[in-house]
Amino acid sequence: MEYPSIIKLSGERIIIDYCLNGSCDEAKSMARNICLEQTVEFPEEFIPEGVIRDQIVGKLESLESISPRRFLAKISYAVECSGSELTQLLNLVFGNSSIKPGIRVERLELPGSLYRLFHGPRFGRKGLRDLLGIPERPLLCTALKPMGLSPRQLADLAYQFALAGIDMIKDDHGLADQPFAPFRERVELCAAAVSKANQETGRKCIYIPNITSPAHLIMNRARYAKQAGAGGLLISPGLVGMDIIRELAEDDGLALPIISHPAFQGSFVIHPDHGISHFALFGQLVRLAGADATIFPNYGGRFSFSRDECQNIVAGTTVAMGPLKPIFPAPGGGMNLQRIPDMLEVYQRDVIFLIGGGLHQHGPDLIENCRYFLHMVSGL
Amino acid sequence: MEYPSIIKLSGERIIIDYCLNGSCDEAKSMARNICLEQTVEFPEEFIPEGVIRDQIVGKLESLESISPRRFLAKISYAVECSGSELTQLLNLVFGNSSIKPGIRVERLELPGSLYRLFHGPRFGRKGLRDLLGIPERPLLCTALKPMGLSPRQLADLAYQFALAGIDMIKDDHGLADQPFAPFRERVELCAAAVSKANQETGRKCIYIPNITSPAHLIMNRARYAKQAGAGGLLISPGLVGMDIIRELAEDDGLALPIISHPAFQGSFVIHPDHGISHFALFGQLVRLAGADATIFPNYGGRFSFSRDECQNIVAGTTVAMGPLKPIFPAPGGGMNLQRIPDMLEVYQRDVIFLIGGGLHQHGPDLIENCRYFLHMVSGL
Repeated sequence: MEYPSIIKLSGERIIIDYCLNGSCDEAKSMARNICLEQTVEFPEEFIPEGVIRDQIVGKLESLESISPRRFLAKISYAVECSGSELTQLLNLVFGNSSIKPGIRVERLELPGSLYRLFHGPRFGRKGLRDLLGIPERPLLCTALKPMGLSPRQLADLAYQFALAGIDMIKDDHGLADQPFAPFRERVELCAAAVSKANQETGRKCIYIPNITSPAHLIMNRARYAKQAGAGGLLISPGLVGMDIIRELAEDDGLALPIISHPAFQGSFVIHPDHGISHFALFGQLVRLAGADATIFPNYGGRFSFSRDECQNIVAGTTVAMGPLKPIFPAPGGGMNLQRIPDMLEVYQRDVIFLIGGGLHQHGPDLIENCRYFLHMVSGL
Repeated sequence: MEYPSIIKLSGERIIIDYCLNGSCDEAKSMARNICLEQTVEFPEEFIPEGVIRDQIVGKLESLESISPRRFLAKISYAVECSGSELTQLLNLVFGNSSIKPGIRVERLELPGSLYRLFHGPRFGRKGLRDLLGIPERPLLCTALKPMGLSPRQLADLAYQFALAGIDMIKDDHGLADQPFAPFRERVELCAAAVSKANQETGRKCIYIPNITSPAHLIMNRARYAKQAGAGGLLISPGLVGMDIIRELAEDDGLALPIISHPAFQGSFVIHPDHGISHFALFGQLVRLAGADATIFPNYGGRFSFSRDECQNIVAGTTVAMGPLKPIFPAPGGGMNLQRIPDMLEVYQRDVIFLIGGGLHQHGPDLIENCRYFLHMVSGL
């Protein structure tokens, strides 16, 4: 190609660990392909000499064998390729390579300049604890469900949960703006119910409505929720894009904790030889975007994550990422109260226990069940 | 649960075909779990009697064996559960079930009321042909690349492509707002270059910039592009959410063709026993959202889609979906000019041939290569 490279770059590099599945020769070839695919997407022989060939094309920094058919490739990219935007950063890391088998993003290592652009969570673990007035023990969260209840019925549930000592009460992630529980009415009634309970208990329980919604409505719903007294925001980045979390987290008018829900993201992690690792997706990326807590399916529930995979998520919520605050892991998904002692071994105290249906199952009295839930974690 | 169902529903149902991988007993259990997981997420014994149990919970309409370990489940949901929103519709179809192995969404069948809400593509195949003034033959598309070129260099390329007879010139999907090719400067120069070429040739080539960008900037970039003379918009819904396509397609001030790019969506289709089918994802869903063309990796290129999978996408672009217009399949990804005769057999005339790097490889003269590209499809 006759076009000379006329640009200048800083030399700062983003480093991505990819796990490549195949023989050693296949892994070498896959690594080289990633370097091209994620950047120039151009036949190698036509790449212009100079900066484009030397710095824009991804660089294979190292390739190590993990097992005979599994290799760890460290590939670096010029930070400028990310264009200072989370959307393009995600594209650079895994855009087209998501369409190829055998490639898994394991870990991100970002240069300092990106942390001047991406501030991550506004609250993080400590900020959320301060907000709730709970300095040390695990946090208790439940969900308003089932879908089909009216706003009044949901608010009544929220009131009982708040009265009984739950710290965080979120909408079930399937509550949107359905005719049987319209967003505005639901949010108003539930926020008021939780506020009333707080006045009676002196506690600081927060209501967290689901604002996952059509693109043009998300910020409106977030603002409406804030105004109505919501204490946090639930969003599913798999449905609306990871960058929405950033927009919400950066909004000084909102300044609410953001809880990320994994709906529609499962395909990234479900096959161990493809996609994005639990550590990187539910830990690093959700945190980089700015969520204060990351919901994921606990091991041993009705989903398939292993204990190891859950521990990897926890690691991703707290691994050094420049100045980014650590965030809360929030394991849920078919949990019940009997699981808590074992979960405490895995998650320690810095965890949000998310128990939905299981809280109804424990015994006939919902309020008693909540109190027992609180009792189990008190004094920790 | 003591809450009575007090709501009334229309009786209209959304029907989703899921392919379930496992034994017959496992498939039955998986199907029942999907009915609960995608709606109430609640222990079965506590689901309130009445409308919630009878209509809100998904219904298994049929379960057929495809092979000894593969079953097709038709599951229906009350249309109200989708809340009239594409985001919640996607969540209803596959939100939490994406986190379970062995489940693949094969096909969507929507009731008429949803087609009064979702209008799909503004242009579709015929509208795009009218816009380009090409009534019958395959459309020719190429991409401006490689990343690292300056706006002036990219515009120079665009000029050459347009002069030589290419119909659609898109940004490479990795061009965002990088310092070496800032969005505004790039769009202005490339749009002007294509316009200049059109004045010389009398043709109607369009420039299609990539507007995939942070959530708060997408609509601004789209409007800027329109104003600068862009003739279409390229967006990657895997990075920014499928609903953005709807917002773009519905905007009467824009009224530009929308081209969907598959970056970051590969994990949904890469494993045949999980995710979303090629037909549903790159065909039905992209079209429902409102894209006028769907880019995907062609069989036999540097990606792994099979010829069958590509044909399934084509089927999804044209299958009956209420009043939705059929859209263009746009196979690309490591294509070259030698492949065209075989591709014509698969795609027929209603196709956008997307050839990027291969257009540079064909011969030493880029303009000659484009002319040969045009020659191969002329008269079809």
